[in-house]
Amino acid sequence: MTDSLKYVVGVDLGGTNLVVGAMPSDGSRELGVHTLPTRADLGADAVVNRICEMIETTIATVMRETGAVRAQIAGVGIGSPGPLDREKGLVIVTPNLGWKDFPLRDRVGDQVHLPATLDNDANCATLGEWWLGSARGGRNVVGFTLGTGIGGGLIVDGRLYHGASDVAGEIGHMTIEANGRRCGCGNYGCLEAYASGPAIAMRAREALSNGEPSTLRALCGGDLLKLTAATVYRASETGDTVASDVVRETARFLAIGVANILNVFNPDVVVLAGGVAKAGDSLFVPLRAEVRRRAFKPAVDACRIVPGALDGSAGMVGAVAAFLAEHPVA
Amino acid sequence: MTDSLKYVVGVDLGGTNLVVGAMPSDGSRELGVHTLPTRADLGADAVVNRICEMIETTIATVMRETGAVRAQIAGVGIGSPGPLDREKGLVIVTPNLGWKDFPLRDRVGDQVHLPATLDNDANCATLGEWWLGSARGGRNVVGFTLGTGIGGGLIVDGRLYHGASDVAGEIGHMTIEANGRRCGCGNYGCLEAYASGPAIAMRAREALSNGEPSTLRALCGGDLLKLTAATVYRASETGDTVASDVVRETARFLAIGVANILNVFNPDVVVLAGGVAKAGDSLFVPLRAEVRRRAFKPAVDACRIVPGALDGSAGMVGAVAAFLAEHPVA
Repeated sequence: MTDSLKYVVGVDLGGTNLVVGAMPSDGSRELGVHTLPTRADLGADAVVNRICEMIETTIATVMRETGAVRAQIAGVGIGSPGPLDREKGLVIVTPNLGWKDFPLRDRVGDQVHLPATLDNDANCATLGEWWLGSARGGRNVVGFTLGTGIGGGLIVDGRLYHGASDVAGEIGHMTIEANGRRCGCGNYGCLEAYASGPAIAMRAREALSNGEPSTLRALCGGDLLKLTAATVYRASETGDTVASDVVRETARFLAIGVANILNVFNPDVVVLAGGVAKAGDSLFVPLRAEVRRRAFKPAVDACRIVPGALDGSAGMVGAVAAFLAEHPVA
Repeated sequence: MTDSLKYVVGVDLGGTNLVVGAMPSDGSRELGVHTLPTRADLGADAVVNRICEMIETTIATVMRETGAVRAQIAGVGIGSPGPLDREKGLVIVTPNLGWKDFPLRDRVGDQVHLPATLDNDANCATLGEWWLGSARGGRNVVGFTLGTGIGGGLIVDGRLYHGASDVAGEIGHMTIEANGRRCGCGNYGCLEAYASGPAIAMRAREALSNGEPSTLRALCGGDLLKLTAATVYRASETGDTVASDVVRETARFLAIGVANILNVFNPDVVVLAGGVAKAGDSLFVPLRAEVRRRAFKPAVDACRIVPGALDGSAGMVGAVAAFLAEHPVA
């Protein structure tokens, strides 16, 4: 490391948590990574203040741990739920945060006196996995972020692909059932309506409503509204039949989404990140088998389907990478 | 036009017909375009011979009509049903032609002593519409080719996108019904199984099987096996209820495919070409309305959804463009 090495701060803004950290431009390490609740209920100004305080905390850590001076901090990359307008740095609308046309990029950049960039959170997670995680070396990559919603990102020829209006990669909102479940986006039959965390819990609740015996009831203390996807996966591992059926169906739904992506986009890597993807073999073994049944052989043969490797920091790492893509540093 | 203007021959190889023609590299005109039956039943050698004879006929026309000399013929672009290996110039498999690992590019190129390129027929049709048809000016474009099957092509940043193994753009094989109709590709619920020409005819036959009155029976001379998508669209225009229902459902299925593409790929143009797309407003009006209901607003607002403009020559024009993309001429 030389004295002139540049550092970039990455911000991963989620509906529940904020993750902020920094990396040198060569991606060799993570510095000053810390997490705080977003507290969107306190309003946009409070969230911006919190983000800026976290950025300053991270910068102080970078300077203390590396001996860098403030001039070596090149800027801030921000990943945010969308839809957003990257060029103007606006968050157009986020149901979780309650924002509309909010100039997040400039509010943060102005307050910390640093150049800033804004990109979609799922794009950032995908870019992070491509830069330093399990999609490394891929040329055309699709990331699925599995959580409260299902997001995604597309990398074409080693660069994030944004499309005509920064919507590209909304793979959770592919229709996989023409007359299917209502989705939060207003459409019917979206992948997200079957395989997001809340959708998994809802399908389990529906399966329980016929009275079949299951450990799930006890696992959520008798209150089925407290049932989560994590509970379902835990029960499945202990052999619970209802939970195992839901887990198997979830793999099938996700496989339809992955197979669609393989036939349309023919990537060399598909990376699945986020909560549900932590299920490991119980997800990936049946998922890969179902993708093989559904997608074209040359597309299946050309593609690795892998879990994300960066866990909680993919979004922060990718926000750093997205900043560097727009502001290359020496 | 100068003496040194170069000409490229385009070949559009279909299961039923061959279209061959030529264009100057500036795309300013079509020359020597003619069509012959493919006659795949006579075997691959016979098809290659026929293609080469048609190429020579076209070259003779170019020389006669423009005064060009043979050295001004830069090469031959071939569009073929896939899957194929572009780098090796192989047609990997085509059910319609009965070929396996057939070195089409070099067989044709060697026989006419010209450089040749090979690309997917639907890619070529999309590229043709982008170069000289209704997708002109688009930056990120998706083409749907509606016919016996449903193919597609993706243009990213003004260049054909092929993916990791030349499969990209198989949008007819997106699953839109998780437990849907069996598709010729082996999967269930593909868009093609609902909205290809034969699928439209099959859905009409199914609708007739309950005995509802319809002019469709008379239109196909009482032999429902002779029912085609064209008959269904014709009957729909005269107010036939069964046919109109099938036409409306077809628009809905296609809209699901288009909406999926808008949410994942966020193109600025979607162009629908081929037989079914000729239905005009009776397809495009309900299709656009359904897309607006299903896809994200910024994606809908950013995208023109248009019928192809080149009709029968899109594949030939695009094959010329694909050659030029690989062999730029002065």
